[in-house]
Amino acid sequence: MRAVTLRDVARLAEVSTATASKALNGRPDVNAATRARVLAAASRLSFSPNAVARSLSAGRTGTVGLLTSDLEGRFSLPILMGAEDAFGAEQTSVFLCDARGDAIREQHHLRALLSRQVDGLIVVGARPDSRPSLGARLSVPVVYAYSPSENPADLSLVCDNVGGGRLAVDHLRTAGCTRIAHITGEPDYSAAQDRARGAQERLAEESLGLVTGRVWFGAWTEGWGRGATRRLLQEGEPVDAIFAGSDQIARGVLDALQEAQLRVPEDVAVIGFDNWEAIARESRPALTTVDMRLESLGRRAAQALAAAIDGRPESGVVVNGCRVVQRGSTAPVA
Amino acid sequence: MRAVTLRDVARLAEVSTATASKALNGRPDVNAATRARVLAAASRLSFSPNAVARSLSAGRTGTVGLLTSDLEGRFSLPILMGAEDAFGAEQTSVFLCDARGDAIREQHHLRALLSRQVDGLIVVGARPDSRPSLGARLSVPVVYAYSPSENPADLSLVCDNVGGGRLAVDHLRTAGCTRIAHITGEPDYSAAQDRARGAQERLAEESLGLVTGRVWFGAWTEGWGRGATRRLLQEGEPVDAIFAGSDQIARGVLDALQEAQLRVPEDVAVIGFDNWEAIARESRPALTTVDMRLESLGRRAAQALAAAIDGRPESGVVVNGCRVVQRGSTAPVA
Repeated sequence: MRAVTLRDVARLAEVSTATASKALNGRPDVNAATRARVLAAASRLSFSPNAVARSLSAGRTGTVGLLTSDLEGRFSLPILMGAEDAFGAEQTSVFLCDARGDAIREQHHLRALLSRQVDGLIVVGARPDSRPSLGARLSVPVVYAYSPSENPADLSLVCDNVGGGRLAVDHLRTAGCTRIAHITGEPDYSAAQDRARGAQERLAEESLGLVTGRVWFGAWTEGWGRGATRRLLQEGEPVDAIFAGSDQIARGVLDALQEAQLRVPEDVAVIGFDNWEAIARESRPALTTVDMRLESLGRRAAQALAAAIDGRPESGVVVNGCRVVQRGSTAPVA
Repeated sequence: MRAVTLRDVARLAEVSTATASKALNGRPDVNAATRARVLAAASRLSFSPNAVARSLSAGRTGTVGLLTSDLEGRFSLPILMGAEDAFGAEQTSVFLCDARGDAIREQHHLRALLSRQVDGLIVVGARPDSRPSLGARLSVPVVYAYSPSENPADLSLVCDNVGGGRLAVDHLRTAGCTRIAHITGEPDYSAAQDRARGAQERLAEESLGLVTGRVWFGAWTEGWGRGATRRLLQEGEPVDAIFAGSDQIARGVLDALQEAQLRVPEDVAVIGFDNWEAIARESRPALTTVDMRLESLGRRAAQALAAAIDGRPESGVVVNGCRVVQRGSTAPVA
């Protein structure tokens, strides 16, 4: 039994294949009588007028699934944009499904995407900690972005949080700061640990350490940025720079420095992390911050997924570098 | 010519239909030899093992497309969540496609979604201004959310920005404020106009008007909130409340009031709009704000779409009410 083709439908309806295609795709430039004849022919032949069926022979559907658990979309939407740009907006559509960090919901969306015969999947986590693999038995290739898979046989693309911490300190050192404190989020986030480690490694290269001798772990909030800065200043050790683990924390740091009548960047320089523009651009002064280049991460994920779809899968963890976005909260680097 | 069914495949492979289904769906609990036999049978019969094809007879695929142009996801993601909750996470998957406000990209995603035979579409705009209709000739029902369609024959669900402006002033009036100023965003946004209109209508009911006699239109930024507040205070007319057109503007208003050593809410009460929690919760004091209830909008969009899919389409513009979230920036309402 041979599969029914568009040509069969066109022949039975006595129209060109182009017209049959237009009619089946709901395009307006086909008159109603012709459309009805084509639909009747398709129905008689049990022809499924869908792109998935038509592309099965070519082995491609031009659709990729993006399975995310990032409720706010702050991380997944730039990755989505980068991936779409890499695929080419005219060739591939990316369908985003929101699993909300719920394994059952993730499985449901996974089945829905696979049953729509997507060509591949990008899985984006809500935080940079590793996550369970979807397994190797899926019918399409998978690339993990932002959160790496626990299985080293999978391909994961992650942000270089250690390198980002190094960059932040490097920027402050170039601006002449020597007494640097680090105020960051919850210690159970690998992002907090990695950024702190990078900062400390970079300081150690010059035989320096963090002011007060410790990382100020707390919460990813402005309130923590304010509170930690107040306590840091109360301890009385001179500080000429604060590296904040997120832009929200940095915002609180700026407010507490202003309260203490310290000038930024003249008395204390401040650098954040995330380049969340709604926060960083609107701070006073505008915030210098480390950008994770999430669109670049999305582009690389798309490129790796395209290679895997073409039979060239990779595995392991690929680290995508960060960059510093200079604004007013650090002195201009000469 | 009869369509090939799962039963045909199972018969040829000499397995139960349940086993054939599991094998075709890539489930792990089928042994490799059986899976190979089922796949060979499906291939010989040109059977397309996809849910779309299988569900064609039932007329449902359990998939809905959400076409958005909201780059930051601040509006579309809560709508997505509300829609998913209404559909039931276990029954329907919502696929989000990002059109970035680009008509060609939107058409491409639209074709991709329709060719995957989604049961219906929810179209979410980036701002509450009306947008062109996708047209009535689509093969599935469409519901517009947040941005209404220009065509009154379509069904649109929108936020009640006029009502939200009324609620803001109502809240301030109940807290005893009489000298209310309004600082808001770009005047070419219908949201800015509608919120201002609601505020003025509510004041007029008590024969009151805005302080300084005008709406302070400007930009949706903290910087404008600060600058406008400074100029407002310089004009010297007493003010006991400021209604800000967004939480970002409100944040700038709070900073400028603090600069001027005015206490919030004792000297001047402040209310924002959006309930953008990253901003509103972290303000000092935490910001009272109007919430557009976007998840509720998403739920209603899903319910209306489900009704349309079941053959009960509606049309017109349905307005979804806002609510006030009380925090510290307005005096407790007795």
